[in-house]
Amino acid sequence: MHATLIYGDHDIRAEEVPDPILLTGDDAIVRVVAACVCGSDLWPYRGVDAVRAPRRIGHEFVGVVEQIGPKVSKIAVGDFVIAPFYYCDMTCANCLYGYSAYCLNGGFWGTDDRQGAFADGGQGELVRVPMADGTLVATPGIPDAALIPDLLALSDVMGTGHHAALSAGVGRGDTVVVVGDGAVGLCGVLAATRLGAGRVIAMSRTPQRQQLARDFGATDIVEERGDEGVERIRELTGGIGADRVLECVGTEEAMDQSLRVARVGGQVGFVGVPHGADLRIGRLFRSNVGLRGGVASVRNTMPELLPEVLDGRLRPGRVFDLELPLAEVPEAYRAMDERRATKVLLRPEAPLSR
Amino acid sequence: MHATLIYGDHDIRAEEVPDPILLTGDDAIVRVVAACVCGSDLWPYRGVDAVRAPRRIGHEFVGVVEQIGPKVSKIAVGDFVIAPFYYCDMTCANCLYGYSAYCLNGGFWGTDDRQGAFADGGQGELVRVPMADGTLVATPGIPDAALIPDLLALSDVMGTGHHAALSAGVGRGDTVVVVGDGAVGLCGVLAATRLGAGRVIAMSRTPQRQQLARDFGATDIVEERGDEGVERIRELTGGIGADRVLECVGTEEAMDQSLRVARVGGQVGFVGVPHGADLRIGRLFRSNVGLRGGVASVRNTMPELLPEVLDGRLRPGRVFDLELPLAEVPEAYRAMDERRATKVLLRPEAPLSR
Repeated sequence: MHATLIYGDHDIRAEEVPDPILLTGDDAIVRVVAACVCGSDLWPYRGVDAVRAPRRIGHEFVGVVEQIGPKVSKIAVGDFVIAPFYYCDMTCANCLYGYSAYCLNGGFWGTDDRQGAFADGGQGELVRVPMADGTLVATPGIPDAALIPDLLALSDVMGTGHHAALSAGVGRGDTVVVVGDGAVGLCGVLAATRLGAGRVIAMSRTPQRQQLARDFGATDIVEERGDEGVERIRELTGGIGADRVLECVGTEEAMDQSLRVARVGGQVGFVGVPHGADLRIGRLFRSNVGLRGGVASVRNTMPELLPEVLDGRLRPGRVFDLELPLAEVPEAYRAMDERRATKVLLRPEAPLSR
Repeated sequence: MHATLIYGDHDIRAEEVPDPILLTGDDAIVRVVAACVCGSDLWPYRGVDAVRAPRRIGHEFVGVVEQIGPKVSKIAVGDFVIAPFYYCDMTCANCLYGYSAYCLNGGFWGTDDRQGAFADGGQGELVRVPMADGTLVATPGIPDAALIPDLLALSDVMGTGHHAALSAGVGRGDTVVVVGDGAVGLCGVLAATRLGAGRVIAMSRTPQRQQLARDFGATDIVEERGDEGVERIRELTGGIGADRVLECVGTEEAMDQSLRVARVGGQVGFVGVPHGADLRIGRLFRSNVGLRGGVASVRNTMPELLPEVLDGRLRPGRVFDLELPLAEVPEAYRAMDERRATKVLLRPEAPLSR
């Protein structure tokens, strides 16, 4: 099959690799219908995270089950399935507590599993899925093709935006600020709206992202950043600050901005992978602003979000603004790196150039 | 009248000072029935916080209203009242949001108010109370003398322990660890028990505090600290960690301990005034442990806790293990400094040695 490998700084390729096979009775083999590139894939692509040897990459996909091991009982051959950006058993203490991204037996795509066997990355034609009964969520029947981007968004970005909103404690009537206008930030706007926020202020400078934010429910757009951004939010909130803030970037500046626009007693939910950023605890103490977040356990919230995607109420797939065949994966990364695209959807079934 | 002044490192005195008078129509004058020494009073006493000139100190008291200004309507002369450890209007945006300790017009005892007039400290015979209608909570009738310590505990420590538990999100059935066995930590044990925690693990090395923790509902005592303490909590929680952790100390070690014993997806509520302590945000991200806390808005929770104190269900006053007349305030500080007492109650009405 063909799959994506990262060779190093700005060097990404679709290449022939061995087909995955069932390795344990709990495995499934999934033929990928759609995959995508994540903002976090850009860290190694940009050389921020070192790449030692060519390795597989990608962690979001939907597809159709081709084979199952003898112990798989909840998933059947022919099912259309959504995979979270990790695999998990859904039976350990962490999974049952709602934190399957921290599954005691699970792991992440594109790395070796606990038996030392490789778990494919998703940006390829086939994936071996460990612990298929826990990991995969099947749709009732084969969904309409138009829903594929929305379903794929449940693999990571929508669930992650939702986690930011839950971590911030968004509730009915709240005033919410969303810091970051990437795919996750935009999904954060959608999640906050869905949870009943009374006002959603999106911080964005890009006209088309501003428009999508508005479509997702943003009531206000703030283009300013730093001191001016803080000042603008203060003005919009009667000098008090926002009840809830979603930090969807991961930089020190974004966290600083988030903490500064939260009101006394407010809460920051953060899902941006922190790069840098020490925090003085006294700063939280003096404002009673809570801080909560981390890797989103999207598998746990998928059953709640899926019905709304299937009936068309929730359209997170609109964050995909470019679609390419797998063979053109280098262009997919370039487009996101250069911010020409918010998020790129990849179609492995499109003919690969050989 | 007589009141307490701090002169410097380990130099505290009860001295003659002018009686307070009504300065605004919103003021009340309260004759103090009982006051006490707070763990935070030990920071200047020990020279950790510099003392520039002799100044008044103390911020917890209950008493009887002697005079009121013409604008005071909710409090009457003769009322028995409890004061929170700050004064507040209970009408500003922060007060209404539940965060009266951050009142936009309020302030702290022992400092000048916003009109530049001094607000007395509490460790004295009389106090001028600004914004009396917002600040004070009156009991129905004059309470039984036996309840004075319990009522006084609502002024700070019980409300602060309660805030730690609320900030940690303690709910029914939760496993809770309390770090710190001072008066606030012990009240945290009581608050967690009251909120329905299934298991409360108190970290304490002092036999009499262990006993009080047990009386307040602790199901387990852990004497170990550092790596051994973490290991012990892991053992007690099946290797998973605690759902909720109350950090009631304020040192870097206590915060580190708290974060290490929380389970994935757990929450740390902190009320110890942070001394030092930078936090790497990645540490929270990797565990999805939330962090929330700060100055407790005890005035907001007083109406909920007061009835339980009045009917004897809640006995936080048991944290007072020494009672002295105001004239012996130097001994009160010494006893707490040397850890001979957990918390000392002061009786201004007792005759002062002159």
